[in-house]
Amino acid sequence: MAAEASRTSEARRDAVFGRWVVFSPARSRRPTDLKSHAPANPSPGAGAAAGAPKPSCPFCQGRESECAPEIFRVPAPPDASPWRIRVIENLYPALRRDAEPPAPEEAGEGEATPGECAVVGFGFHDVVIETPRHDVRLWDLDAAGVGDVLLAYARRVRQLMEHPAVKYVQVFKNHGASAGASMAHSHSQMLGTPFVPPSVTTRLNCMKEVFERLGKCSLCEFQSKDILVRETHNFSAIVPFAASYPFEIWIIPRQHSSYFHEIDKDTALDLGSLLRTMLAKLSKQLNDPPFNFMIHSAPFGVSSSCLPYTHWFLQIVPQLSLIGGFEIGSGCYINPVFPEDAAKILWELDC
Amino acid sequence: MAAEASRTSEARRDAVFGRWVVFSPARSRRPTDLKSHAPANPSPGAGAAAGAPKPSCPFCQGRESECAPEIFRVPAPPDASPWRIRVIENLYPALRRDAEPPAPEEAGEGEATPGECAVVGFGFHDVVIETPRHDVRLWDLDAAGVGDVLLAYARRVRQLMEHPAVKYVQVFKNHGASAGASMAHSHSQMLGTPFVPPSVTTRLNCMKEVFERLGKCSLCEFQSKDILVRETHNFSAIVPFAASYPFEIWIIPRQHSSYFHEIDKDTALDLGSLLRTMLAKLSKQLNDPPFNFMIHSAPFGVSSSCLPYTHWFLQIVPQLSLIGGFEIGSGCYINPVFPEDAAKILWELDC
Repeated sequence: MAAEASRTSEARRDAVFGRWVVFSPARSRRPTDLKSHAPANPSPGAGAAAGAPKPSCPFCQGRESECAPEIFRVPAPPDASPWRIRVIENLYPALRRDAEPPAPEEAGEGEATPGECAVVGFGFHDVVIETPRHDVRLWDLDAAGVGDVLLAYARRVRQLMEHPAVKYVQVFKNHGASAGASMAHSHSQMLGTPFVPPSVTTRLNCMKEVFERLGKCSLCEFQSKDILVRETHNFSAIVPFAASYPFEIWIIPRQHSSYFHEIDKDTALDLGSLLRTMLAKLSKQLNDPPFNFMIHSAPFGVSSSCLPYTHWFLQIVPQLSLIGGFEIGSGCYINPVFPEDAAKILWELDC
Repeated sequence: MAAEASRTSEARRDAVFGRWVVFSPARSRRPTDLKSHAPANPSPGAGAAAGAPKPSCPFCQGRESECAPEIFRVPAPPDASPWRIRVIENLYPALRRDAEPPAPEEAGEGEATPGECAVVGFGFHDVVIETPRHDVRLWDLDAAGVGDVLLAYARRVRQLMEHPAVKYVQVFKNHGASAGASMAHSHSQMLGTPFVPPSVTTRLNCMKEVFERLGKCSLCEFQSKDILVRETHNFSAIVPFAASYPFEIWIIPRQHSSYFHEIDKDTALDLGSLLRTMLAKLSKQLNDPPFNFMIHSAPFGVSSSCLPYTHWFLQIVPQLSLIGGFEIGSGCYINPVFPEDAAKILWELDC
């Protein structure tokens, strides 16, 4: 622990979002002591027979009729096996698929002109139920099971991409009530939006600037300063040099690739294996913390000149610290754990 | 309530941060039913005689020696009256005033070059104790008392501005544990940073673009779509057209002004009166919610060509909804309460 004790505050800026982060070890106990005080699911399935559906959960097997309409399931009918994954509409969608989509030129116009602007709330809000069982967490599945969930994301993104008014699809998972999950049953979500979200624009602008001035993709050359936790044939799991959150992890394709939804079966299996390992490590180290993960991909229809500097990745953020006025006001985060320390702890953990 | 019932989802972008916000009334109950489930201070001062210091609180009168060093107090010695406001150093600073500041050219270089970058954690992290009494909240003070707190902010910002390595000062208040306040005794904070924070850069870029294309300052002409709640001689309190958070409020100088720290005594009194009214309204309507407020000003030393489009304001954000993977990933917020409804409720409230 000598290395940690000797650290002093430092401010770092990353090469993907261009964000400044303040590392301030004095504001925390030792990194190894940082645990979640609000475990996401203190006792999953407690009190119920293993595998039994929870009487009140519409995501459980046998209660499909209580959900919003199904989009597809895995395995696909007429396979007689019970479903393993269901992609359904969100019963309380933030954006509505039945709203009139903005005309392509109208949406383009709005985005190009600065200033206030409003469009109807058209879009898609879907849910991926990752398992029929209430007591199974995503990382309880085997690598192939997690890989199949990733393939279900990719398939649904490709379907949404066909709609001319959908500019971006944000795939994300909320685990635990304080991370925004309103259902305990393991699931992910995606929102297809009629605009390019602000963080996506910021990320592309930052990566473009790096590419133009340094001649390299920010994520192809991450090895310079980021800290590797684990590597597979196709992916690297790292703690980024300027991580905004303690124990934040990025899983990055080792080969340059702009779009997540182009992932093939073998690569998804490889990613599934790495993702479940990293989620298991976070759960073990941090006391089953609430967390979010997000897939950052390129917007649809960007020009081919953008492809050399857009590189998709998956970001995992455990919810361990509170967001206050400094973060909301400045967009700058205070992280009590140096990435070097988080990576060492996660690397050594046996999972 | 007919107006609310008829609302359908809408996406709006604002003219200050360029952020898209999704308004989705279907995801909430009626706006009037939205209350905090985690009141910031369920019973301030309960169990103690009114005005008595809390035995364990170093911010209370009489326990000054347990705090980090004092920077100044109001009234200033040799005035024999007891102090009403103290500005002190933060005992657990995120940035350190004793670190070696980056050389001006070095910091400039780092900021100009895209890509990863690190600087020592130099900076200032100060605390403003708003009252000697543990059981008094900021809006329990009278208008002059709140005005004096604002003048103390401004005075300290002017002091920090003198340091050549300080590029920006973020003034903010966290109220309630879940909004990031580690002390219950009413206080605010400020961080003087050796870089311009990311949200400040985004805001200036967006306001510049609006100014260049439409020839107007985004906040001088806010009246077009934003919704007024209350007005004084110098300030307007509005719910912004594209508020990211339910019941978010902005207090904006009616006359164009780039820097908060140039505020004079009369104007601070006027702002103090409006700020305490708005905080009282939020507390009454939303069940004493945890909240943050932030002052958004111009960075020090911007060129005079920037001044026509930089306009300072104070943003109040009650903490009523959770941040999940969609918000973290996309930078886009889902707000269940339309600004029109929030403004009407706040306008009608008698405070």
